Amino acid sequence: MSDLIRKSVQAMAGYVPGEQPKGEDIVKLNTNENPYLPSADVQDILSMIDVAVLSRYPDPVCIELRKAIAELHGCEVENVFVGNGSDEVLALCIRAFVERDGSVGFFDPSYSLYSVLADIEDVEKKPVVLGPAFQWQMPDDYASSLFFLTNPNAPTSMQFSKANVGAFVKDFKGVVLVDEAYADFAAENCMDLALQHDNVLVARTLSKAYSLAGIRLGYCVGNADLIGAMYKIKDSYNVNYLTQEVARVAILDQDTMKANVQAIVETRKITAEKLSELGFEVAESQSNFLWVKPLDFSAKGLFEELRKKNIVVRYFGNDELTKDYLRITIGTAPEMFKFLDVVEELMRDA
Amino acid sequence: MSDLIRKSVQAMAGYVPGEQPKGEDIVKLNTNENPYLPSADVQDILSMIDVAVLSRYPDPVCIELRKAIAELHGCEVENVFVGNGSDEVLALCIRAFVERDGSVGFFDPSYSLYSVLADIEDVEKKPVVLGPAFQWQMPDDYASSLFFLTNPNAPTSMQFSKANVGAFVKDFKGVVLVDEAYADFAAENCMDLALQHDNVLVARTLSKAYSLAGIRLGYCVGNADLIGAMYKIKDSYNVNYLTQEVARVAILDQDTMKANVQAIVETRKITAEKLSELGFEVAESQSNFLWVKPLDFSAKGLFEELRKKNIVVRYFGNDELTKDYLRITIGTAPEMFKFLDVVEELMRDA
Repeated sequence: MSDLIRKSVQAMAGYVPGEQPKGEDIVKLNTNENPYLPSADVQDILSMIDVAVLSRYPDPVCIELRKAIAELHGCEVENVFVGNGSDEVLALCIRAFVERDGSVGFFDPSYSLYSVLADIEDVEKKPVVLGPAFQWQMPDDYASSLFFLTNPNAPTSMQFSKANVGAFVKDFKGVVLVDEAYADFAAENCMDLALQHDNVLVARTLSKAYSLAGIRLGYCVGNADLIGAMYKIKDSYNVNYLTQEVARVAILDQDTMKANVQAIVETRKITAEKLSELGFEVAESQSNFLWVKPLDFSAKGLFEELRKKNIVVRYFGNDELTKDYLRITIGTAPEMFKFLDVVEELMRDA
Repeated sequence: MSDLIRKSVQAMAGYVPGEQPKGEDIVKLNTNENPYLPSADVQDILSMIDVAVLSRYPDPVCIELRKAIAELHGCEVENVFVGNGSDEVLALCIRAFVERDGSVGFFDPSYSLYSVLADIEDVEKKPVVLGPAFQWQMPDDYASSLFFLTNPNAPTSMQFSKANVGAFVKDFKGVVLVDEAYADFAAENCMDLALQHDNVLVARTLSKAYSLAGIRLGYCVGNADLIGAMYKIKDSYNVNYLTQEVARVAILDQDTMKANVQAIVETRKITAEKLSELGFEVAESQSNFLWVKPLDFSAKGLFEELRKKNIVVRYFGNDELTKDYLRITIGTAPEMFKFLDVVEELMRDA
């Protein structure tokens, strides 16, 4: 590769997004997207946009959208950072809070992007391996400049208790970003920790509960000084006009989001019960996906057999911690019944 | 400020975007936006979008859009990087091509963001002061890891000849990003240098000629290895679905873009002539704005007087190189006649 490219960039592996298979008949249960429509107000606002406004730069600091988010969480606009997807929020945290000789922590297994982001910035990684059932397990003397704490965790689907998280952040000397991408599907969340502690940020996304992965909108809430530092170093106009408008109306329509979440949580319960009956080990999900271990099949074999039947789930490869598991996004009820039928059929034929 | 924040971030000053004044009567000539409508296909595609698609992640590598751009410039998809505005393209260049002990070069005066981006990454800045008439002036032994070469330059509006740029890049050891945000308004451009030289990238934006500052879409063209490095370290889904679709149809409609550019170039000519007649020094603009020195007024005084009359232009403050100049975006012909009338009136009353 060209010697014009920074050595750390040459050396690192990039992030690999989940496959986006094309085709009419595919049941796509691999990237934790929401199978339901976003708020009807989204279609309305898109059809009402006067394109003349697109010739102007968007609001660089997203004031109207941040007002809606601040209202939702009972905080001030100064406590809210809005980004081009949570990806940007996470990347900016490293650039804002980690010195070059600092370090980034995260659980293992967790969202695989964290490690890539640390490599991009060429800072030390300090992963913390979870307990044997993927439960909370933090060494007593653990320290890092920044800790990405995914809760509910991915790909394990499980929630760490707010009590555990609260006790951890109280004594931690660095910044803790609680990545709550899936919190709307969970029984509790840590948002008030962000408003109580100077070193805690809580990140949310519109990609999951709001059915808006396509618009790229993530945000985080926390101490105004931390938020201000992120604003200082973001791209000047990081969130485009269309996304700002769509996100604002979607957040104002909490009813649609909650109804979709409710449907997914119900389908999750049925799917989990059925898979347990079929002899799978099923983690207690507080998210929009299941983390399951097939007991009579290899996970890899089942992944491949499902793929042949046009059902795409996520397999994370040969890593020792995750090689026996599959991550299955909760789709619509008909999609999940189709999935369950195929699983039963494969087990019968085995 | 909190000691949780990286020291270099605490120390730096953020980028200050141009003012976005609100109000019906304001003639806004301060941020180099296009006063004309984008392609009619933009309105069509926005009204035709099925919001169900927004629940899915967008194409992380923007293949359809890159095909349209590759077709436009006669290159391959692998030669095109698409970003969330040129801002992202520029920031990624530093992160991809500048080691921590490397340096970033740019002309002075030029786009003020370059210096901020170098501060964000905490790398050395090696500015090159232009000649007394803002013309090309490059020290013989000049070196940097990356050089941002704005052409036509901003805020000076003038073009560096392709011959100068070509001779420079041939011997330069680092990467040269030719920032051609304004190239559609110019008599020539350097796109073929990007396809001839392994160390040259040419960046374009849809914010100016395509009247789409609101959607955030910038791209660059060049050597596939350099482009690949940028893809490796970008945010996973850096360009949202709506922007990909809008940008694609706008690029396919070259006729609308060219007609708008033609109108702006004609208005630029008339405005420049008139200001010269009024005793202004007017740089030879190859962009959608003018760089002018009022001879009978102080630039700052004229800026303030215009502001009182609801005409907003750009003044860059007390820096020795730019303190005597104003940057005036070319608006519609009626806007520019209003501007000229007010200038004449102020000169009469002075």
